[in-house]
Amino acid sequence: MRIIGIDPGTGILGFGVIEADKNGKVKLVDGGVIKTKTNQALDERLIEIYRHLASEIARTKPSVMAVEKLFFAQNVTTAISVSHARGVAMLAGKLAGLQIAEYTPLQIKQALTGYGRADKKQIQEMVRVLLSLKEIPKPDDCADALACAIAHSMTVR
Amino acid sequence: MRIIGIDPGTGILGFGVIEADKNGKVKLVDGGVIKTKTNQALDERLIEIYRHLASEIARTKPSVMAVEKLFFAQNVTTAISVSHARGVAMLAGKLAGLQIAEYTPLQIKQALTGYGRADKKQIQEMVRVLLSLKEIPKPDDCADALACAIAHSMTVR
Repeated sequence: MRIIGIDPGTGILGFGVIEADKNGKVKLVDGGVIKTKTNQALDERLIEIYRHLASEIARTKPSVMAVEKLFFAQNVTTAISVSHARGVAMLAGKLAGLQIAEYTPLQIKQALTGYGRADKKQIQEMVRVLLSLKEIPKPDDCADALACAIAHSMTVR
Repeated sequence: MRIIGIDPGTGILGFGVIEADKNGKVKLVDGGVIKTKTNQALDERLIEIYRHLASEIARTKPSVMAVEKLFFAQNVTTAISVSHARGVAMLAGKLAGLQIAEYTPLQIKQALTGYGRADKKQIQEMVRVLLSLKEIPKPDDCADALACAIAHSMTVR
């Protein structure tokens, strides 16, 4: 099963594509970030995110999109910004026929470590270990997106 | 100039299409709401909003989308929900080649009444008068979307 994980954001959106085999072993297919500029109009930024993601999906052909869920936010402005990009990302997946799954940060932590209080660094280290990588994927947004994809592969096993 | 106004929301999204002539006179072309059910998955709701809006745009052929801007929200949960739909609505407009304009509630009030403190009822009454309608368009979300479209027609004159 091929899964694209998404860590949503308007300024920077992380994505990571993994392949999970029947035994639950996961490997990295692709990963990166989509950055848009703060001096661009919001509609320009959203269509850029949409086009980039649609092309990534067409190229890597995942069947599922796992999106990090925003259930709490430090401030409303951040929540608004992330949610615009998150809606667009989910639509890009849905229009490409992908199944869409949502995971809270807590669900991702629990899936990867069985321990809801693991810190960000521990989660990223688990991503590195599970994908048999030498280094933690950079930047953080890409590692977080991969964590979300791995959480899905573990949840549906 | 034909303008589609949008009052974004995931549960209910208002839209209203107007035609503005060179003298600034506006008339109603179409208006309504897109409702999605709370028991539906978010991705299903977003694609429903996208498809409905894309079809409304294809049918009524506006050249501009005027979207109410959320710059403040009473609570984060509402802001998150509205922003998902708002991102999808803007993308639907952008993908159809429309110019996208954003207006805060204050800008809409000032454009329609020259008085930033006008209440919701006064704005709706202005919508009715300016569009030469017998009744205020129902529900409120549709009237608010029309107010946003009219604000754009007045701002760009």
